[in-house]
Amino acid sequence: MKSIPLILIGCGGVGSHLLHHIVSCRSLHSKQGLWLRVAGVCDSKSLILAEDLLNKGLDDSILLETCRIKSAGLSLSKLGDFGECRVFNHTESHGKILDIASQLGKTTGLVLVDCSASSDIVEVLKQAVDVGCCVVMANKKPLTSSMEDFEKLFTYPRRIRHESTVGAGLPVIASLNRIISSGDPVNRIIGSLSGTLGYVMSEVEDGKPLSQVVRAAKSLGYTEPDPRDDLGGMDVARKALILARILGRRINMDSIQIESLYPKEMAPDLMTVEDFLGRGLSLLDKDIQERVEKAASKGNVLRYVCVIEDSKCEVGIQELPKNSPLGRLRGSDNVVEVYTRCYSDQPLVIQGAGAGNDTTAAGVLADIVDLQDLFP
Amino acid sequence: MKSIPLILIGCGGVGSHLLHHIVSCRSLHSKQGLWLRVAGVCDSKSLILAEDLLNKGLDDSILLETCRIKSAGLSLSKLGDFGECRVFNHTESHGKILDIASQLGKTTGLVLVDCSASSDIVEVLKQAVDVGCCVVMANKKPLTSSMEDFEKLFTYPRRIRHESTVGAGLPVIASLNRIISSGDPVNRIIGSLSGTLGYVMSEVEDGKPLSQVVRAAKSLGYTEPDPRDDLGGMDVARKALILARILGRRINMDSIQIESLYPKEMAPDLMTVEDFLGRGLSLLDKDIQERVEKAASKGNVLRYVCVIEDSKCEVGIQELPKNSPLGRLRGSDNVVEVYTRCYSDQPLVIQGAGAGNDTTAAGVLADIVDLQDLFP
Repeated sequence: MKSIPLILIGCGGVGSHLLHHIVSCRSLHSKQGLWLRVAGVCDSKSLILAEDLLNKGLDDSILLETCRIKSAGLSLSKLGDFGECRVFNHTESHGKILDIASQLGKTTGLVLVDCSASSDIVEVLKQAVDVGCCVVMANKKPLTSSMEDFEKLFTYPRRIRHESTVGAGLPVIASLNRIISSGDPVNRIIGSLSGTLGYVMSEVEDGKPLSQVVRAAKSLGYTEPDPRDDLGGMDVARKALILARILGRRINMDSIQIESLYPKEMAPDLMTVEDFLGRGLSLLDKDIQERVEKAASKGNVLRYVCVIEDSKCEVGIQELPKNSPLGRLRGSDNVVEVYTRCYSDQPLVIQGAGAGNDTTAAGVLADIVDLQDLFP
Repeated sequence: MKSIPLILIGCGGVGSHLLHHIVSCRSLHSKQGLWLRVAGVCDSKSLILAEDLLNKGLDDSILLETCRIKSAGLSLSKLGDFGECRVFNHTESHGKILDIASQLGKTTGLVLVDCSASSDIVEVLKQAVDVGCCVVMANKKPLTSSMEDFEKLFTYPRRIRHESTVGAGLPVIASLNRIISSGDPVNRIIGSLSGTLGYVMSEVEDGKPLSQVVRAAKSLGYTEPDPRDDLGGMDVARKALILARILGRRINMDSIQIESLYPKEMAPDLMTVEDFLGRGLSLLDKDIQERVEKAASKGNVLRYVCVIEDSKCEVGIQELPKNSPLGRLRGSDNVVEVYTRCYSDQPLVIQGAGAGNDTTAAGVLADIVDLQDLFP
């Protein structure tokens, strides 16, 4: 049986789903000769480690208890009462993870699995890469800080996986990497990479006022608590930056042209959420409605997309033919169109749910399993 | 530099494109620390081997000359005059390949790359698997013969790649394998996996008679020389069988229900191609036209698809909603819809060119590169 030791960083929605998936796939993976050994789990406050790091992992009962504790909003440190594990507090945890990384990285191997939403963790990941660890990320932030950080993380490209940073579990990164390694030049990527903005744009296409659509989306739980976190386009820009960088563009966030769906004077530091949802949003209705109508008069629709082409990397509203994969998009699915030499007239299209803890965690798990050939 | 030694079996359209891709990717792969070392190439008549099998490959000049010779319809044995290589004839070649497989399989590793369309090669591939070789296939036949052959080839699943057996270079198999390894249960696959039949069905949808569409497709070079090779559905059935088997179904070709677009009395042994293209096809127009109209009256369209669901594996015409990814399909693109727990209401959709030597060879090359972690 091949053992893949891992430490999970971040046990919120995605992390908890991952632990559930790992436990429920035990018999499947065992048939493939694989054992995913969870040596530790941590959140922002505590790190829990298996007693015998070299040979055993945390018991499945502890992993499921972790999910229960986190979904109840409790602290991981409660796990100390539960069985064979050791608890470390926040100040110790990064140092402890690096100790284990040095110990296991060069012998049995270790995967650091980053399902957090933290920027701080990039230092730990970089040092872990240095000592031979693999890194799997659902967290976009380590890949969207400086170009130096990005290149450091990709020192050994085969040891890094990050499918779930773009389009959740959709096989976007895996497919792009296949295209890249076959030498097929990517001429253009255009994608709708926000389920929220996909929903918003297809609803305004039907003639509904933007304000009403956003308010409905918020009450359906489709948006962040402050919908400006979606409408500002920063999340899409992060995904665009990751795509551009894996295509070899050495660019930073400030090279990306980002169109926000709200003006500067409605920014969070100038207007409360309530004000924005009330009078703010209503002020935006007319302009969007006019753009929708102008597009429709040409047989087009508006989509909030990222476009990567030549040296250009843009995020914002584009007019697209109603009869293209992006133009036909309805609801909250993500769509990515990739144009290459092999896919020149008609793009390679990948479409499906691009959000959700279940599918995001499934993408992370597939990444971990795909690292197996690097383990002894 | 990591060296991946390989022997190419079959240097027709796909094989020649692969050799071209390998040569033109030299600098790209070298940046990734990879060297694809072509130890040998063979067609149905000859095998050409590098002189120093352990350390060198055939020169790039020989690889390009191979492409030139094959596209001129000449025999590979001509390469003997060209440089440092050895030529073997048909009777020796399989034995010689197995000698090398035993020699390299357990030491530096060896990839057998099957771009032929031959059924005979399966015995060689099975024995090569036994001695530790990797196998990459564009050839569907080794995976669609007996279940025993299939299971033997998959003795070490990580050493087998076959992306280009379904949808050419489209990332169908890679995506399915990710879904499988994450434990996300596949409930249903429905796909249009023949560019020819995709084109035919979207043309008859527009009201054109089947006979006219097939004759046009043939003159455009979209069909096999005898269009019944496409219209019979056997090629789609082979792809369906491969998909069903990687989902774990232990079935054979005779378990697949195949709907042929022509009746038994027009089979090749009873009717010449000319007769079929003339009076035969015209006799089929009315029935298809009625089915198209009946479907249209319900807002549906006809598509020639494979459906894999529960224990069912079927290939034939289905009525599908005009407003589904398959219903919207136009022209010769392939589309695959995959329904799983994560993609339950809306499927994961992969769409794009599913034929062509360039994209098929690109898929094979990506498969080879993806084996790199298995090499020392």
